[in-house]
Amino acid sequence: MFVTCLDLEGVLIPEIWINIAEYTKIENLKLTTRDEPDYDKLMKRRIKILNENDISLNQIQKIIKGMSPLPGSKEFLRWLHNYSEILILTDSFIEFAKPVVRALGDYTLFCHNLETDEEGKITNYSLRLQNMKKITTRKLKEMNFNVIAVGDSYNDIEMLKEADFGILFRPPKNVSEEFSQFPIVTEYLELKDQIKRILEI
Amino acid sequence: MFVTCLDLEGVLIPEIWINIAEYTKIENLKLTTRDEPDYDKLMKRRIKILNENDISLNQIQKIIKGMSPLPGSKEFLRWLHNYSEILILTDSFIEFAKPVVRALGDYTLFCHNLETDEEGKITNYSLRLQNMKKITTRKLKEMNFNVIAVGDSYNDIEMLKEADFGILFRPPKNVSEEFSQFPIVTEYLELKDQIKRILEI
Repeated sequence: MFVTCLDLEGVLIPEIWINIAEYTKIENLKLTTRDEPDYDKLMKRRIKILNENDISLNQIQKIIKGMSPLPGSKEFLRWLHNYSEILILTDSFIEFAKPVVRALGDYTLFCHNLETDEEGKITNYSLRLQNMKKITTRKLKEMNFNVIAVGDSYNDIEMLKEADFGILFRPPKNVSEEFSQFPIVTEYLELKDQIKRILEI
Repeated sequence: MFVTCLDLEGVLIPEIWINIAEYTKIENLKLTTRDEPDYDKLMKRRIKILNENDISLNQIQKIIKGMSPLPGSKEFLRWLHNYSEILILTDSFIEFAKPVVRALGDYTLFCHNLETDEEGKITNYSLRLQNMKKITTRKLKEMNFNVIAVGDSYNDIEMLKEADFGILFRPPKNVSEEFSQFPIVTEYLELKDQIKRILEI
């Protein structure tokens, strides 16, 4: 029996921080783990920038509400759900991810969460689980699931390695070059073909 | 962060085997674990009865297709999904459960599966995991989720015990008497109230 674990940003929806940066016109919010590899430092920096600019969680949620899933992602999930259970695994936060995941359907979302003060300002973030994507994949395998994992960037690699089948979806060049053991797809149609081959359908 | 694990039959949809028994007018298919506590013996007996009566998986799936979710269950899940992730855990089989779960929404289903021959006759069943409900609950807790479990009968008790919060939904009298440590609800409105109290909303 199959479970497919999918990364959210870049695979099913656009990058959330890029959208926030564009909407607020704050260039520094475009920084990613490629610019600051230490995720904790990066997140603390982002939170600092938001507070310096007086941007509350509520305002960010309004920006996110305006985001649409990537074209074709909803139909892809609907197709996939005929053959495999689906879990969406993201290192983002439920306060950001939940509304846009619900626009995709009633899928299950495993992620982290933010901390806010009384005024609705983001004060910190809380990781529910270190190495969440990898550990979730491992536990699914321990429950005798065959796991397909789909991701696009560095923080997905451990999940892809742990899964029975790992697929890179629209990875940046450095990721696809460094992890050439995984098949690379750029369209949902190709992703479907890869999954069909795995499922032998 | 919360995950709610819900049993399927009796909690969200009617009992599948009862429906099959009524539709096929085969009284013996109404037997449950209350009549035959050994699940393996019970399932082998059911499969034998189906084959003696020339009933294929395809025919059963047509019967199941005609089943509706319990009134109110869909709305309940939609409400719950605002506050908690949702997993549907059933000791039934994907070939039976999947179509009726999809009628509820795109929720994640953890279950077992059937084996069939070329003619589509059910030859055996395969448990993906022994004590699936309990083990899934335990692994979710290991992933730092707070787990609410909702079930109605004996095969849910270990899950309810393992969870942070266990709730009995419309249990038979012997179950509610034997496991009086769990709150008992008979309507979705009461179930919502119990969950609201747990989530402090």
